Amino acid sequence: MNFIENTIKKIKDPCNSMYHNAKQRLRQQARPAGSLGVLEEIAARLSGIFNTLNVRLQNKIIITCAGDHGVCEEGVSVFTPEVTRQMVCNFLEGGASINVLARHAGAKVVVADLGVNYSFDPCLPILHKKIGKGTANFTKGPAMTYDDAIKSIEAGIAIVKQLHDKDHIHLIGTGDMGIGNTTPSSAIIAVFSGLCVDQLTGKGAGVDNDGLKRKIEVIKQGISVNKPDRNNPVDVLAKVGGFEIGGIAGIVIGAASNGIPVVCDGFISTAGALIACELAPAAKKYLFAGHNSVEAGHRYMLDYLGLEALLDLKFRLGEGTGAALSMELIDAATRILFEIKTFQEVEIQDTQK
Amino acid sequence: MNFIENTIKKIKDPCNSMYHNAKQRLRQQARPAGSLGVLEEIAARLSGIFNTLNVRLQNKIIITCAGDHGVCEEGVSVFTPEVTRQMVCNFLEGGASINVLARHAGAKVVVADLGVNYSFDPCLPILHKKIGKGTANFTKGPAMTYDDAIKSIEAGIAIVKQLHDKDHIHLIGTGDMGIGNTTPSSAIIAVFSGLCVDQLTGKGAGVDNDGLKRKIEVIKQGISVNKPDRNNPVDVLAKVGGFEIGGIAGIVIGAASNGIPVVCDGFISTAGALIACELAPAAKKYLFAGHNSVEAGHRYMLDYLGLEALLDLKFRLGEGTGAALSMELIDAATRILFEIKTFQEVEIQDTQK
Repeated sequence: MNFIENTIKKIKDPCNSMYHNAKQRLRQQARPAGSLGVLEEIAARLSGIFNTLNVRLQNKIIITCAGDHGVCEEGVSVFTPEVTRQMVCNFLEGGASINVLARHAGAKVVVADLGVNYSFDPCLPILHKKIGKGTANFTKGPAMTYDDAIKSIEAGIAIVKQLHDKDHIHLIGTGDMGIGNTTPSSAIIAVFSGLCVDQLTGKGAGVDNDGLKRKIEVIKQGISVNKPDRNNPVDVLAKVGGFEIGGIAGIVIGAASNGIPVVCDGFISTAGALIACELAPAAKKYLFAGHNSVEAGHRYMLDYLGLEALLDLKFRLGEGTGAALSMELIDAATRILFEIKTFQEVEIQDTQK
Repeated sequence: MNFIENTIKKIKDPCNSMYHNAKQRLRQQARPAGSLGVLEEIAARLSGIFNTLNVRLQNKIIITCAGDHGVCEEGVSVFTPEVTRQMVCNFLEGGASINVLARHAGAKVVVADLGVNYSFDPCLPILHKKIGKGTANFTKGPAMTYDDAIKSIEAGIAIVKQLHDKDHIHLIGTGDMGIGNTTPSSAIIAVFSGLCVDQLTGKGAGVDNDGLKRKIEVIKQGISVNKPDRNNPVDVLAKVGGFEIGGIAGIVIGAASNGIPVVCDGFISTAGALIACELAPAAKKYLFAGHNSVEAGHRYMLDYLGLEALLDLKFRLGEGTGAALSMELIDAATRILFEIKTFQEVEIQDTQK
């Protein structure tokens, strides 16, 4: 836990005066004040983070964390658990949704194995950070040990350090792959928010109505059997979380401690971000929400974090797809700030009140 | 009117079987069915339009139509009318919002003068299509003659032909510049929808509450003085429209008749698209909505057209900015369809119900 605590201590506040400089420049641009809406705030926040008005997000990366879930035994997904491993291989081949959308956004994709129930060839270009071969079925006891929960977060932190040391990163997107992982994600927001599981649980990859009822019961059982302590985020992760969710939490903390903005994807990524921000509230200043997922609990997560998503395209996929697509808007925000000329620069009189 | 009617007759329906082929491929991709939400429908529609699964939107263009408005005499804008001309010059210099966002989207910007109250040097790289030096104040009579309304639509059609002949276009974005032009736009949706002007009128570039009240009265007066015939879109355009709005209507019709998809920007562009689709309902199949404007009447326009916008970033700018930014999502949609592998291609068994 010392490693996590020390990393959290390294998180600095973004530069407030540069944030305000950015706001001022945006107000002076030759257009109605505030007319570029949400992108203006994004631009100013990034200015604060990088301490410059000329932010350039040249090196963008999506880190897709994979893990399996023992709770799949309870029939909470339409896909069989082997699909986690198969999709990891698909990511490596470049033909999956995240590869396509990351290419489109000019971002690299890195796949991290936090807990897939399969022994990958160590030569494969995966970040090999396996904590265990899938979690335990949380209806019967904790998903993982407390130590393993810590290890999964530490692994996420280490991933950011490793990638950033190799090649200076300007923007990280989180992503996930794990059949069954909307179930622990609903459980996590249920524990933190105290809201009813029913309203926080959706159909994931597409269970039917009976499946949804079963899933809700499974989550309620997981919470009642394990009694996660909402004041201890590691306990919540250990009891009803997942290895890839811990990895994502670590990535958010690692990004913030390195001064790197991080855009979280949908439901599972935001569950990871929740764990991160409960542990390290200061990380929130580096966190952006890529999109609104269709999954029922996602908006409660974003509300809880006080974040507004950039995109609302009815995605319910994960992998990092929403984060990747939103990177183009984040890039646009930086260009808006730096490139749009002010009234003064173009010699037009600003007659706005 | 013959030219417009003949152009409308040339609009063909997109290929329905290719649309369904696209839908089928999307369903077979290695991801939960429907998980890429709104982008799936965009991708399928574009497949139908181009009659291929491999749509490539290489040549994208934003056409920003400019015009002045006599109704500015009534104090409906915070900006003075000279700003229209000044902003046109700003577009030519490349430092305006639309230049920045179009560059980001890989689109060209073309500026068309449909009715600016200024004599531009004919050597300037503007599409010189001036119908008049600003419209008349519509509180005192029609904004323009019926003939000029026709001419403005014809000019838009001619612009598309001219640009498409020179350099095959794959995607057009509409844009506008015209101080005061939210006022005619509110009037247009009020006439077509029959809804109350109050709910269709917003603060435009930023009038205060008194300004908003005045603007609402001005629009009501314009409608009651001129009595536009909602069954005759050219009459509506002539009586309470604008030259650039007519130009945009022509662009939408011209795009559809050339089989080119067209993404409309915010409030003013959608007013133009409304005129176009009232004249040529078949054009709707080529029309996409870029974003939701903050301007009050915009959602009523989109509802009226049956369109759902791609972005909701609280923009209220025009120029084509929302259209430009949405082009990146439209591009992403085409890549999704063609590049994401199917379950069969990656040898994963689809266990979805």
